[in-house]
Amino acid sequence: MIAIDWGGTHLRLYRLDADGTIVARRRSDQGARASRGRFAEVLSSQLAGWDDADLVMCGMVGGRGGWEEVPYLDCPAGLDTIAAGLRRFVPDGFEGRRLWLVPGLRDASEPVPDLMRGEESQLAALLELLPAGEHRICLPGTHSKWVTIRDGRVVRIHTALTGELYGLLRRHSLVGALMDGGDDDAFDPAAFDAGLARSAHAGGLLHHLFGVRAAGLAGLYGDGLASYLSGLLVGHELRGGLAVDRAHPGLVHVVGSERLIEVYARALGALGIEVRHHPEELAARGLHALWTRRAGTVREPSASAG
Amino acid sequence: MIAIDWGGTHLRLYRLDADGTIVARRRSDQGARASRGRFAEVLSSQLAGWDDADLVMCGMVGGRGGWEEVPYLDCPAGLDTIAAGLRRFVPDGFEGRRLWLVPGLRDASEPVPDLMRGEESQLAALLELLPAGEHRICLPGTHSKWVTIRDGRVVRIHTALTGELYGLLRRHSLVGALMDGGDDDAFDPAAFDAGLARSAHAGGLLHHLFGVRAAGLAGLYGDGLASYLSGLLVGHELRGGLAVDRAHPGLVHVVGSERLIEVYARALGALGIEVRHHPEELAARGLHALWTRRAGTVREPSASAG
Repeated sequence: MIAIDWGGTHLRLYRLDADGTIVARRRSDQGARASRGRFAEVLSSQLAGWDDADLVMCGMVGGRGGWEEVPYLDCPAGLDTIAAGLRRFVPDGFEGRRLWLVPGLRDASEPVPDLMRGEESQLAALLELLPAGEHRICLPGTHSKWVTIRDGRVVRIHTALTGELYGLLRRHSLVGALMDGGDDDAFDPAAFDAGLARSAHAGGLLHHLFGVRAAGLAGLYGDGLASYLSGLLVGHELRGGLAVDRAHPGLVHVVGSERLIEVYARALGALGIEVRHHPEELAARGLHALWTRRAGTVREPSASAG
Repeated sequence: MIAIDWGGTHLRLYRLDADGTIVARRRSDQGARASRGRFAEVLSSQLAGWDDADLVMCGMVGGRGGWEEVPYLDCPAGLDTIAAGLRRFVPDGFEGRRLWLVPGLRDASEPVPDLMRGEESQLAALLELLPAGEHRICLPGTHSKWVTIRDGRVVRIHTALTGELYGLLRRHSLVGALMDGGDDDAFDPAAFDAGLARSAHAGGLLHHLFGVRAAGLAGLYGDGLASYLSGLLVGHELRGGLAVDRAHPGLVHVVGSERLIEVYARALGALGIEVRHHPEELAARGLHALWTRRAGTVREPSASAG
């Protein structure tokens, strides 16, 4: 089967054998936003030479403005619930294949619901891997997710706008104007730690963000101002994410790129919290697990959808 | 004399008589950023027909990248200290006039210093007006200032990036993309109050900001999503600003435009805090007060600066 992680800004395809081992990978920058209006064309071109019948897709491709919108499933949700929520659809040009879309998850326990779409497939792999009991997961990124898994079900989702806000401040703000270089700032551990330490002070994030400007004007942290900002934002995210449940966990599972895992491990380590790393391609394993559970239970649909 | 409030994005000139009464006003969009490299030209054109000898200027015109940089004065600072810090300078083409620049203020009581440049002149008016004792002032805006005055001196400055962050999120973020219309969103009191209420919940600003997106996707607050975001940010600002000193004040002085005062009075009122309004042109009165204190004490300088 082919597992497809199709987010707003990325497209990753994995070819897996029957055991769920990844035998080939493809990456593209044709994310769901760039692919709007021509999803079929983009996917066909990416599939060249891969003739597997089953394609299981997660991410914004199944969201509003995606290829076909699949409603969110409410938490708590385990592997069986998510697998049962897979939406089969047959777009023109894919008549010989079976395409599936994974639903996102919604946590309605707060006055404003929290949401994920795409990360549930990474979590699906962990739902299969982790023993019963409670586990805390952090999936850092544009919209960082903090998730609580309890006895095989996703029970709580808490999202922070960390990555998106960092990008906005870096590119468009008076704070960012004080920083040299482009988006790929060199990581300055001391400045990052200073930002992290600052996040523990009173005053609030809005005040701390003005402080980045004041620090820049005063020449504090030199070329490390972007790392200081990063430490500040990650620190605020951690404080909110760890406070979701009463007790701080002793261990957090972090899923993401090597660069992000390094940063979050540093920040969590400063709070005395142990980290277990998982690569982003956990999504492939999760999509395989969902498909395996679903495949045996479905009859062939007789109608086709656009 | 002529009082000039020359910030990053605005230029306001006031002509005052000997008693300090404003007899004429001029406004321009030639803020200090737009005027970089041609301050003398912009000012000459704005002064047409006003032949007063003394010009007292505050704001970014005296900051880094302004016409001439005047260092910050450290808090605590009273009227006499600020007046003594006025910098006289004589640029080419202004030989028949006396130009003065007001220094900004710095509060170094935190690990990262807090700063103001321009607002000190509005505060100068309040330093003259208010009786001894402690007073709390809020000057909302791009960088909202919360100030504590004690016995005639500015003792504490606390800035929040509220206005700038609102603008960034409104114009450049995925959250802003869910909002219709331009920058001038209609004010929706119910949505503003909902954002304000949300700010009191646990989870942190980064989490609450993602909630704006989730609320938008769920259709909560309808066309009022921008007001919800505004309430959320103002609520977080208030919580930080009010916590600067131990006890919440019963009364806060708010200095600003009618639109901002209405919004902040609503938010402070929800916390049971009384508000006294002051117009932005308080700066003219403050600049007059500083000039009056300074004028008698200085000899004519013999050198001229570019």
